Amino acid sequence: MEKKIVTISREYGSGGRYIGQQLAKELGVPCYDQKIIDMVAKESGFASDYIEEKGERITGSLLFNIASSLTYATNVLSGSGTSLQDEIYFIQNRIIRDLAEKGPCVIVGRCADYILRERQDCLNVFIHADHKTKIQRAVTYFDIEEKDAPAVLKKRDKARANHYKYYTDQEWGQVSNYDLALNSGVLGVEGCVKIIKNVLELAK
Amino acid sequence: MEKKIVTISREYGSGGRYIGQQLAKELGVPCYDQKIIDMVAKESGFASDYIEEKGERITGSLLFNIASSLTYATNVLSGSGTSLQDEIYFIQNRIIRDLAEKGPCVIVGRCADYILRERQDCLNVFIHADHKTKIQRAVTYFDIEEKDAPAVLKKRDKARANHYKYYTDQEWGQVSNYDLALNSGVLGVEGCVKIIKNVLELAK
Repeated sequence: MEKKIVTISREYGSGGRYIGQQLAKELGVPCYDQKIIDMVAKESGFASDYIEEKGERITGSLLFNIASSLTYATNVLSGSGTSLQDEIYFIQNRIIRDLAEKGPCVIVGRCADYILRERQDCLNVFIHADHKTKIQRAVTYFDIEEKDAPAVLKKRDKARANHYKYYTDQEWGQVSNYDLALNSGVLGVEGCVKIIKNVLELAK
Repeated sequence: MEKKIVTISREYGSGGRYIGQQLAKELGVPCYDQKIIDMVAKESGFASDYIEEKGERITGSLLFNIASSLTYATNVLSGSGTSLQDEIYFIQNRIIRDLAEKGPCVIVGRCADYILRERQDCLNVFIHADHKTKIQRAVTYFDIEEKDAPAVLKKRDKARANHYKYYTDQEWGQVSNYDLALNSGVLGVEGCVKIIKNVLELAK
């Protein structure tokens, strides 16, 4: 079946966001990544930075879990029954489903593969790379010092994995969740764009 | 870098073996799957069935671990220091490395991705599929009754995962171990062959 929507999940420093943007450009379709955060921010009234922090960077720590439970308990008592984190996720969930309805697009991150799991026209892609490649990209493109890069990589990917697990009950980076998983360290970021385009052509 | 060797790891019923055979045929290179078992059998003096059973079907059960420990202890006392299972793995390991030295080929299963991990000319592929697709293939091609298929699938994949973990200390089916992971249920077995060929072309 033709795949009109490409979701891209990615390890930090793998080039997944660039691959998504470049793919969208070459396909002539919109790429939603930071834009989704801005849309959630606009709808919720919070700043984009705050949404980004809450949206993909929960740490899964004991402290976070206690804080979430307390927030949840407070909200239950006040009648709302959900945490702020959950509210943000619900808004994001609706926005992603609406964007998919609008037409062909590329969506980077934000559990889009799971949110759109009922659609048959999604190609779910995971981009990963070896440690060295990710360190190099983080230093070159994200203005991170080399000595700090390993810790940043670990923290960001752990947060993504925890966030994904929390809202999908699935394992982030487990092949069964994706139609196509590519090692950008071996295949190259431009190579990954070409491969995804080729897969979309084959699926027509 | 050009990839001359393709290793294919695969879930049971995903069509991975067929994909490997078809790919090798279209590339005009040998495909090693059952042949490796026969070669190990010839070298070790055991029957192929026995090698297959020992080679990829250890269950990781408590009983197996106790039996392995006892075998190991017996062998240590007798001066050999390895279990029969290990001996088979060592022979297989050497055969796979020799086959890779011989020239371009496709190797299905047998931890080949790990055994050849030092080579830069390997493309490591993982083939998986949704449960329904795998059941259908198991019933159609492996002469398994539909009512038995879920249990067979579970048992075989668990055994492969345990065997892989035991000899590589890596997780079977974790994207980081593969350059390319494909869902044959979504992309089709013929589609997977085309995608791998395309990736090999791009890597030249």
